[in-house]
Amino acid sequence: MASEHTSNRRDSWRSKLHEIIFEADTPAGRRFDIILLWAIVVSVLAVILESVPYFSLNYGEVLWAVEWFFTILFTIEYIVRILSVKRPMNYIFSFFGLVDLLSILPSFLGLYFVDTSSLRVIRILRLMRIFRVLKLIGFLSQARTLRDALIASKQKIMVFLLAVTILVVVLGTVMYIIESPESGFTSIPRSIYWAIVTLTTVGYGDIAPVTALGQAVASLVMILGYAIIAVPTGIITSEIVRNDVTSSNTQSCPSCSREGHDDDAEFCKYCGEKL
Amino acid sequence: MASEHTSNRRDSWRSKLHEIIFEADTPAGRRFDIILLWAIVVSVLAVILESVPYFSLNYGEVLWAVEWFFTILFTIEYIVRILSVKRPMNYIFSFFGLVDLLSILPSFLGLYFVDTSSLRVIRILRLMRIFRVLKLIGFLSQARTLRDALIASKQKIMVFLLAVTILVVVLGTVMYIIESPESGFTSIPRSIYWAIVTLTTVGYGDIAPVTALGQAVASLVMILGYAIIAVPTGIITSEIVRNDVTSSNTQSCPSCSREGHDDDAEFCKYCGEKL
Amino acid sequence: MASEHTSNRRDSWRSKLHEIIFEADTPAGRRFDIILLWAIVVSVLAVILESVPYFSLNYGEVLWAVEWFFTILFTIEYIVRILSVKRPMNYIFSFFGLVDLLSILPSFLGLYFVDTSSLRVIRILRLMRIFRVLKLIGFLSQARTLRDALIASKQKIMVFLLAVTILVVVLGTVMYIIESPESGFTSIPRSIYWAIVTLTTVGYGDIAPVTALGQAVASLVMILGYAIIAVPTGIITSEIVRNDVTSSNTQSCPSCSREGHDDDAEFCKYCGEKL
Amino acid sequence: MASEHTSNRRDSWRSKLHEIIFEADTPAGRRFDIILLWAIVVSVLAVILESVPYFSLNYGEVLWAVEWFFTILFTIEYIVRILSVKRPMNYIFSFFGLVDLLSILPSFLGLYFVDTSSLRVIRILRLMRIFRVLKLIGFLSQARTLRDALIASKQKIMVFLLAVTILVVVLGTVMYIIESPESGFTSIPRSIYWAIVTLTTVGYGDIAPVTALGQAVASLVMILGYAIIAVPTGIITSEIVRNDVTSSNTQSCPSCSREGHDDDAEFCKYCGEKL
Repeated sequence: MASEHTSNRRDSWRSKLHEIIFEADTPAGRRFDIILLWAIVVSVLAVILESVPYFSLNYGEVLWAVEWFFTILFTIEYIVRILSVKRPMNYIFSFFGLVDLLSILPSFLGLYFVDTSSLRVIRILRLMRIFRVLKLIGFLSQARTLRDALIASKQKIMVFLLAVTILVVVLGTVMYIIESPESGFTSIPRSIYWAIVTLTTVGYGDIAPVTALGQAVASLVMILGYAIIAVPTGIITSEIVRNDVTSSNTQSCPSCSREGHDDDAEFCKYCGEKL
Repeated sequence: MASEHTSNRRDSWRSKLHEIIFEADTPAGRRFDIILLWAIVVSVLAVILESVPYFSLNYGEVLWAVEWFFTILFTIEYIVRILSVKRPMNYIFSFFGLVDLLSILPSFLGLYFVDTSSLRVIRILRLMRIFRVLKLIGFLSQARTLRDALIASKQKIMVFLLAVTILVVVLGTVMYIIESPESGFTSIPRSIYWAIVTLTTVGYGDIAPVTALGQAVASLVMILGYAIIAVPTGIITSEIVRNDVTSSNTQSCPSCSREGHDDDAEFCKYCGEKL
Repeated sequence: MASEHTSNRRDSWRSKLHEIIFEADTPAGRRFDIILLWAIVVSVLAVILESVPYFSLNYGEVLWAVEWFFTILFTIEYIVRILSVKRPMNYIFSFFGLVDLLSILPSFLGLYFVDTSSLRVIRILRLMRIFRVLKLIGFLSQARTLRDALIASKQKIMVFLLAVTILVVVLGTVMYIIESPESGFTSIPRSIYWAIVTLTTVGYGDIAPVTALGQAVASLVMILGYAIIAVPTGIITSEIVRNDVTSSNTQSCPSCSREGHDDDAEFCKYCGEKL
Repeated sequence: MASEHTSNRRDSWRSKLHEIIFEADTPAGRRFDIILLWAIVVSVLAVILESVPYFSLNYGEVLWAVEWFFTILFTIEYIVRILSVKRPMNYIFSFFGLVDLLSILPSFLGLYFVDTSSLRVIRILRLMRIFRVLKLIGFLSQARTLRDALIASKQKIMVFLLAVTILVVVLGTVMYIIESPESGFTSIPRSIYWAIVTLTTVGYGDIAPVTALGQAVASLVMILGYAIIAVPTGIITSEIVRNDVTSSNTQSCPSCSREGHDDDAEFCKYCGEKL
């Protein structure tokens, strides 16, 4: 009886913790999310600044302190998260569970190994945790139209990317034959890299054709890239326009049963019946 | 009585000045705006030319004269503006009031301080005054569709920019680990800068990957950038198309006088009255 | 009587010539246009090749012969055009009349002056004559939708270009203050040039920021450019979409008088009446 | 009689082979296509890696073995294809027949000639064979909307490309006159190449204007390019949006069985039958 009571008490304490940490409906949960958001941003900024020689030399100790402050904070948060869920294993091996672990582990590993610069950079993955907070706060409801448009046009984009891939392989190989290695086209992969740089209109200029024939082919590639950049834009625009139109309203008139009313319509625009 | 008369006379003189300077309904006001427009353009050109060594050496005195001519002109205009409004303080601390002050102050400060080159460049802010003239002339009514489309898609663009920000931070960090500092990836901020330069397809080429793995990742970034440039275009195009469609019908309801009906509507969607 | 007869004969001879040269309705006129098209393309190619040192050294005489062959051909054509119109002066001072003159004049001037290399390049204007031929052949009817879309969105594009102009002047000035002259920002005009190169995502890399603050501002400029490139695309797409929709069909049903039928519709889609 | 039986047996054996190799309806045919797809990808990867000095030096023998394995495999496949069709000549001289031959021939020619590096690269054409497999698997049904949109806007795109061509020739010539050869504008073709690089916003930076006038003209070219990139995007987007709209309704008329009715159609627009 006493044991049951304890169990109940522990459960209520756990569910309350769960509400604060994993949800954003209560004021406490909302507050927690906002604090977490700032902690993530500040700790990521610390990781970024640490990579700049100027800051690591002059403010190394401050950054070290900030880093450990947030590592300990996130470690506590990680332990509390494990305690607050009913099935800890499910959380630990979930996507966000692994991200949470990866964002604290490198700091601890840094205590045992000497050169962990590239290991510690993994902490930048903390940034992924922003998505969890955003999900909770409901900010991402705005992102739904975008996501839907991208998902709906997924297959068309796949076909487009496949065509682009074949195109850059063929164009890269053509340029590898035409241009001499001196101008940077030393191998087919590098020539494919050049074709991508050109077709996407990035154009670094580290590899650029110097022969007349090469420049003629490059001109064709550019105008091609200029024309086909229109394709993904067309696909996604069309999808967003359609979503806007179809998602406007699904209400049908009780009298004539016709649909297509605006969101602010109070009367059927076809028969004048009240909606 | 005399005092009142004077006050009335002063008021009518003030309101007439106000009409000319702050409005564009009368021929005099319109003339004033056109003169102001040219004065702004010429004085900004003088500031720009002054920064070119060739012109500041050979035509320094001419530019000095032009500069002071417009500074005195704008100073007179500023004083007249203060005189012509009923509550001078409201004007002085308004956005355009501060811009007006900032566009004359640097020249006067240049009399007391020796090296004011970067200070004097602030005068380029005079350019902002063009917006006031345009606002008056009514030219900006054309800009409304654009502004509405941008405002309506503000939240979607925010989500898009947030996603792009997280993307460039992660991609920049990945490239910082992959590439050696010799090729320009000396710190995470510089690598993020590279990611932005690449994702937006600007591609200076001052920082460019040299390793095979780095070029492979860069290729992915470019094709990604190529695909996601379609998203803001889709958002804004969709918004402009929608605005065009909804604003096409200007019919107003004979009963409730509200507008915004579809082209195929036969009854008012707000009150059910036959259109 | 004899004179009148001669005049009539001359007139009929002139009107026949006019038909061949200025119109494209008859087989002869069509043949003339196609020959002219090829003559323009070949002579322009000769001008282009002449500018390449390799060709001017090795095939100088061939190019010289080609050049004079087409110059004499175009001169004869020019004289015949003058003879075939009723009011020669109207033709001579028309846009295409001046283009015709400019495309033969430089070659003759080259006989009297020694260094006419830049003068002779003017002959490239012959390319403009292609538009006349295209206009005649009726090829440009396809271009009408494009032209209409551009004209309809002219004012919005003007507002957009004005905003971009003010933006690049302000951004260029900001970068001129932030960056040192060593990295290429030697004057405000050059900095404005950089801002245009960056905002349009061209990105040569001849001028690129090197300081941290400069790169941060440049990043903002790029993301801005990335976002606002969507605006002209949105304007023109919206215009083309609207043109497509409204120009689809203006036929109204004889029974219920409703419009919006497809081009291939044979029966009214609302009441089933034959169109 | 025996001969006829043999012929029948051979025919059934041939038609079964044909079904597996040329079609994708049966499980065997589908399996064959998937194996072929992987064989193409792996053999193309081998050709690409062979061009990299590192791989050709260290793994030359492995690549040689892989190459001959696939060459023999594709040779067997080629012979079987010839055997399985009724009219071998039709297959051999068809587009895919020639691609199949070109993808094995270079390896055999390499046995007789010494320096065949550029010849052997032709094997990359094997990549084209992917399209055949995709066609069979039915993956390309998704590509139809894209293809239709491109075909429907073919003429508009032609007009656009013609205008762009004339534009870059004129702009290139103007820059050739303005800029000195030292900055890279050594001939008109090179200047045209620069104009294309700039107008398409690629911007390598290998040729860039250095004079003030040249940079001013270049700025105009960039802003022009910025504006006209909107045109192909608008054309294709408009086409995809229209296709989406017209293809959304799949209702067919009960009387004449034709499709393509609008969503709000109540009567068949071809025969007037009630839908």
